[in-house]
Amino acid sequence: MSHGSLIGQLIEALRCLPGVGPKSAQRMTYHLLERNRAGGRHLARTLLAAIDQIGYCAMCRNFTEHELCQLCANAGRDRSQLCIVEMPTDVMAIEATTSYRGLYFVLMGHLSPLDGIGPDELGIDRLLTRLGEGEVRELILATNPTVEGEATAGYIAELARSRGLKATRIACGIPMGGELEYSDSGTLAHALVGRRDF
Amino acid sequence: MSHGSLIGQLIEALRCLPGVGPKSAQRMTYHLLERNRAGGRHLARTLLAAIDQIGYCAMCRNFTEHELCQLCANAGRDRSQLCIVEMPTDVMAIEATTSYRGLYFVLMGHLSPLDGIGPDELGIDRLLTRLGEGEVRELILATNPTVEGEATAGYIAELARSRGLKATRIACGIPMGGELEYSDSGTLAHALVGRRDF
Repeated sequence: MSHGSLIGQLIEALRCLPGVGPKSAQRMTYHLLERNRAGGRHLARTLLAAIDQIGYCAMCRNFTEHELCQLCANAGRDRSQLCIVEMPTDVMAIEATTSYRGLYFVLMGHLSPLDGIGPDELGIDRLLTRLGEGEVRELILATNPTVEGEATAGYIAELARSRGLKATRIACGIPMGGELEYSDSGTLAHALVGRRDF
Repeated sequence: MSHGSLIGQLIEALRCLPGVGPKSAQRMTYHLLERNRAGGRHLARTLLAAIDQIGYCAMCRNFTEHELCQLCANAGRDRSQLCIVEMPTDVMAIEATTSYRGLYFVLMGHLSPLDGIGPDELGIDRLLTRLGEGEVRELILATNPTVEGEATAGYIAELARSRGLKATRIACGIPMGGELEYSDSGTLAHALVGRRDF
């Protein structure tokens, strides 16, 4: 870097963003300095505020800068359904469907003993406390259909059943608009097993 | 956005970066909050410092947080050659070749009367002052081979010649490793006109 060191530092700092390599970081740096210093200043301040103020919802563990997130604080949601997901982005994906009116519980990961992630790290104690309060009637297990996600779903389903609660798992099968010919055999096997009356 | 508003604000703020759409901004936001708050804080602080402190080199108009940039302050550079470029990224590209030892002058744009960019906006007065100091023997015109870049180069070449200075233009032709078959005819015409003894 033959430039002033502060430019080099900014290019380097931007690389902490996912998907940003040296060329993109350089392009972003010059773009902000040449054309959008106000936007860059706003970004820096918003980023600091977000990092300092955003914590976890006391009910569902999703990100929020308040004690409860907007969903848990919303009196209009159905409190008898609780959807268990791995990450906050999964909440956004389900909300985008607009077909679910219940609440969520965000594990912030999945069981992964090799990485030292067990029930404690996933907030299972808090989930059990919540189930014990008696409002929840159905647990919808919406962890990813991966090995770890299935294991996590199985573990939580077991806990739910031992408390006499209904536990359901989101359907696995051929994606809408997909083709059988190009589906992997695991997905196709799931689609067959999970067939429904037509 | 069903999330806490600060998350939505951060996603929105990240979109001031070039090439970052809504999905990337969301991914960056969750990545920083989940996995790299320290990196995000460092990025925000470096960005604020860069925007507040980086100005323009008093000699060449390139970005620097000092009065002179590292190149102009370097006593080892050849002060008889002055390479005129449009943008700071062009300086980086030429420096990356390691085949130029002279100094630069950064126009920060090109002549564009429709956008209100004339000689004043490109710092031509400062360039003339510098040429008048008598150190520079050759002006190397390295603006882009576009309509505006060519017009800008022609304008500066005229000024240089009227002061008895040598003005050269970087070569236009087939890129190294390129193929004649796939060159546009303008480039090929330039390559023919600019042919040299072999």
